[in-house]
Amino acid sequence: MNIAVLGTGSVGSTIGTKLIELGHNVMMGSRTSNNEKALTWLGNHTKNASAGTFAEAASFGHVILNCTAGTATMEVLQLAGESNIAGKVLLDIANPLDFSKGFPPSLSIVNTHSLAEEIQNTYPTVRVVKALNTMWAGLMVNPSMINGGDHNTFICGNDAEAKSIAIQFLKSFGWKDENILDLGDISKARGLEMYLPLWLSIYGATNNGAFNIKIVS
Amino acid sequence: MNIAVLGTGSVGSTIGTKLIELGHNVMMGSRTSNNEKALTWLGNHTKNASAGTFAEAASFGHVILNCTAGTATMEVLQLAGESNIAGKVLLDIANPLDFSKGFPPSLSIVNTHSLAEEIQNTYPTVRVVKALNTMWAGLMVNPSMINGGDHNTFICGNDAEAKSIAIQFLKSFGWKDENILDLGDISKARGLEMYLPLWLSIYGATNNGAFNIKIVS
Repeated sequence: MNIAVLGTGSVGSTIGTKLIELGHNVMMGSRTSNNEKALTWLGNHTKNASAGTFAEAASFGHVILNCTAGTATMEVLQLAGESNIAGKVLLDIANPLDFSKGFPPSLSIVNTHSLAEEIQNTYPTVRVVKALNTMWAGLMVNPSMINGGDHNTFICGNDAEAKSIAIQFLKSFGWKDENILDLGDISKARGLEMYLPLWLSIYGATNNGAFNIKIVS
Repeated sequence: MNIAVLGTGSVGSTIGTKLIELGHNVMMGSRTSNNEKALTWLGNHTKNASAGTFAEAASFGHVILNCTAGTATMEVLQLAGESNIAGKVLLDIANPLDFSKGFPPSLSIVNTHSLAEEIQNTYPTVRVVKALNTMWAGLMVNPSMINGGDHNTFICGNDAEAKSIAIQFLKSFGWKDENILDLGDISKARGLEMYLPLWLSIYGATNNGAFNIKIVS
């Protein structure tokens, strides 16, 4: 499948590489077609990888992965262009972390709203699924790295088919069906994004980012 | 030890009962000394239990447990009286959930602030420790109910001795040392309180409140 990865950071490059390993064609999108990080990433792949502007990538992808910094996402989607994302499945992996006042960051959208809802409200035809934003990039595509893969990942969104496509991606990354929890509609992204301060605190207290949570009952 | 339990809801009555079982003397505080829920709770105990106003309970307790609704906490502490809580250890178990616009609730204090910090800032001599706010009351005092007791609880606060007293309470409730994670100073309460929307979403998706999270790495 042709997939657009918007964003050239560690999430974009990690997921982009995994998608190529799985046989997909990936175009990494950034502000300029000669973005240095995108070209570095491109240099690590001999086929099925390309790089372009946000608009070029969004036009190329049947599915869009939002791997941008959450505070930049709305501008990025404007650059990508409504016509290039209309009707498509968009996996929103971003967190609206605002580092403008240093560490720890606050959330730029919070409490009664979320980044994923902002995307959904602004682009009603886009089929937004929040996914994978609750962990370090390395674990997103390699859950078996810890605890035999037995820990949880969450999705939410308004479109059942889009969620089922998201689940297929997660399973191809190694996530077990029983560890993927569908929380409901896109408003549930509030809780997923508001988990980040706790994630950062646990990371700070344990000095280890390669952790995740497992629901036990 | 003489302990004040502020609040007559399920958290207050569950923890109050557990503390009595452990041999402590507990006074449950509420707005009026003849609060119906407090008297019902009192009726279930033959000794070591009493009920009174917030001020009477706070005066009685060497340690104060804040089991009130988070949106009422600041008013409750005012009623308790600064002189009755000054210098004491206060375990803050409350969540500032605002149900005024229905379900799901939003948080009345969030993102760049937290209820626990509000308490600490308002009463600088009180030794505030955030604890146990991330789960259903039944699990707080009976962690072995699920997964052999192997799941996590968090504390944070500015006073090391107060945190060590909090840990002693948690251990007496059945929590294992290795499952109690100290996140740092009281500002880490932001993450602990902002976890609640995700908690509520998981509860909604699984229809089971008797769950907790375990950190795996």
